Amino acid sequence: MYVHDAAALPESPIPGIAHLTLASHGDGLESLSVWKQTIAPGLGTPPHRHDCEEVVVVLGGCGELRIGGRQLRFSAGSTLVLPAGKDHQIVNTGAAPLEMVATFSATPVATFTPAGETLELPWRS
Amino acid sequence: MYVHDAAALPESPIPGIAHLTLASHGDGLESLSVWKQTIAPGLGTPPHRHDCEEVVVVLGGCGELRIGGRQLRFSAGSTLVLPAGKDHQIVNTGAAPLEMVATFSATPVATFTPAGETLELPWRS
Repeated sequence: MYVHDAAALPESPIPGIAHLTLASHGDGLESLSVWKQTIAPGLGTPPHRHDCEEVVVVLGGCGELRIGGRQLRFSAGSTLVLPAGKDHQIVNTGAAPLEMVATFSATPVATFTPAGETLELPWRS
Repeated sequence: MYVHDAAALPESPIPGIAHLTLASHGDGLESLSVWKQTIAPGLGTPPHRHDCEEVVVVLGGCGELRIGGRQLRFSAGSTLVLPAGKDHQIVNTGAAPLEMVATFSATPVATFTPAGETLELPWRS
């Protein structure tokens, strides 16, 4: 209940993205979700936003955060701070897998396209 | 603003604990804090609780979570799910540094002793 052992990161239906929900409402949490994700080289998330805050801790690889019309480079050890409601896209610009832990101030995590349509996630959020 | 580059983990005034706040209210967040911590072999946190939810992602090393009268072993890759208001203690039981990312559903993070007294943290939470 309090300790979840390590598990392999399964590929998701989104090309290049492997995803594991480390903790969420399914574990009794009310306002915290934590995901582990890997993005393959050359690929990225679609542009999207959440209605909650997000912080991404970059464990390995390097990439580019596209937000507010800017392209910001980051690498292992970087932290990304993403305000609620702010469109963003994370792209792996390196040759190695981009490894991240993403944390959210809500559970489940609601996700939307830049046009405001609900983006159904293929995993428990 | 959106990307914080890697920084070294400074030793804290708590023996054996190195701490870096990766993201918190100081970055404009309202309900999410993310810390990086390392605990030296043989040492641990004091027993304590928070008034918010906490999820710990274990990046390296191994240890023991003391919670609810139980002693639960964990290691790199494990995730610890700590409900709000639940006393807990994290101890490094291995020979290597215990490396963790701790995430909280509030910022700043209020911390209390098991007796209910406020535990002043030596870092921005």
